[in-house]
Amino acid sequence: MSIEAARSLQSDRTTLRRKPDRGAYDAATIHPILDEALLCHLGFAVDGQPYVIPTIHARVGDRLYLHGAVANRMLRAITDAPCCVTVTLLDGLVLARSAFHHSMNFRSVVVLGTASEVTDAAEKAAAFEAIVEKVVRGRSAACRPANDVEIRTTKVLRLPLAEASAKVRTGPPIDDEPDYALPWWAGVIPLRLVPGEPQADARTAAGTDFPHDLATDVGSARFR
Amino acid sequence: MSIEAARSLQSDRTTLRRKPDRGAYDAATIHPILDEALLCHLGFAVDGQPYVIPTIHARVGDRLYLHGAVANRMLRAITDAPCCVTVTLLDGLVLARSAFHHSMNFRSVVVLGTASEVTDAAEKAAAFEAIVEKVVRGRSAACRPANDVEIRTTKVLRLPLAEASAKVRTGPPIDDEPDYALPWWAGVIPLRLVPGEPQADARTAAGTDFPHDLATDVGSARFR
Repeated sequence: MSIEAARSLQSDRTTLRRKPDRGAYDAATIHPILDEALLCHLGFAVDGQPYVIPTIHARVGDRLYLHGAVANRMLRAITDAPCCVTVTLLDGLVLARSAFHHSMNFRSVVVLGTASEVTDAAEKAAAFEAIVEKVVRGRSAACRPANDVEIRTTKVLRLPLAEASAKVRTGPPIDDEPDYALPWWAGVIPLRLVPGEPQADARTAAGTDFPHDLATDVGSARFR
Repeated sequence: MSIEAARSLQSDRTTLRRKPDRGAYDAATIHPILDEALLCHLGFAVDGQPYVIPTIHARVGDRLYLHGAVANRMLRAITDAPCCVTVTLLDGLVLARSAFHHSMNFRSVVVLGTASEVTDAAEKAAAFEAIVEKVVRGRSAACRPANDVEIRTTKVLRLPLAEASAKVRTGPPIDDEPDYALPWWAGVIPLRLVPGEPQADARTAAGTDFPHDLATDVGSARFR
């Protein structure tokens, strides 16, 4: 493992208290989970009221990028203010012999930090590309790039990946020892997010082939 | 539509400013989205720092239930304090002719409110059952119910569904009119969360059949 991959993003605030054995703080664990997640949930507070809004993120190295319209309330609320970005990948339903020990298999990441606006044109362009490429690899070369007006009316925020934690649960249910004698079926129902057949819109010229590889380029498919 | 289903959960704080045509505030829109989502993202603030943690929720009527260990930091932080519960169902990737108009089809719900601890034994038992049944319908009759110790060490919180909004995007990309002349493929890649073959754990007795209907009882499958 490289030094970068082993770098710890642990802090007191990101340290797991419940089931600490499920926690990880190294970039090698945290980055792939952020990359696989197609969306994140962004938390911020306004006048003491927490809000959680789904949005798209993209990671470039140890920076996470968020974007939206310049007038966007959410982006305004998190600019230069503490926020939290959380992603969760649901991998399976865990059915135990007791109601109590039912669980889910998942991989989640919580990032704490303060986001700031990207004003450098090259960094902003790279962030745009990362966001498009995250959804479909190769897509930025298969559509019209952002023009000046679009770039100007879109705000990009950078959140350093400096303070974060991952939490991962895998494997079968863990029942209380006496419960293993019970006759119930117990195990895992795996869950996967899968892409269906691409549906061209009504104004795509007839005969235009879908230009991407569904199995390897779309969303998180390439990570499986 | 019943009076209950048409009841508005709109408030100034839950009113969508961006793309207001995608917003809805009626229980008939909001409840099924909450029911289909297998997990939610719970937002709260501690010392001005927002946190967003994934957890399981279950709806009973116009109440949302959350649960966890009595010692759980997150539950302690939201008890009698403002919180936000957000669920997001990702339905598709929207590929436009311009990078700018790429989007996602999704259904999300944001609930604002203050959660309080459930102390009534019958309500707590009903919340437990709703949480188990939400994951696999019929499961609460196919496992050992919670015993007194488990009930005592688990905290259940009730969040009234009184202030909420839904945001829904469906359909093809919407490109700028001149861009429709471009040769790019544009359309939607549908996404679905699908269950795989159930994997019995090593200590399930050989020959024990999976006791649920994968197509209709598991997770959100019954909503599709």
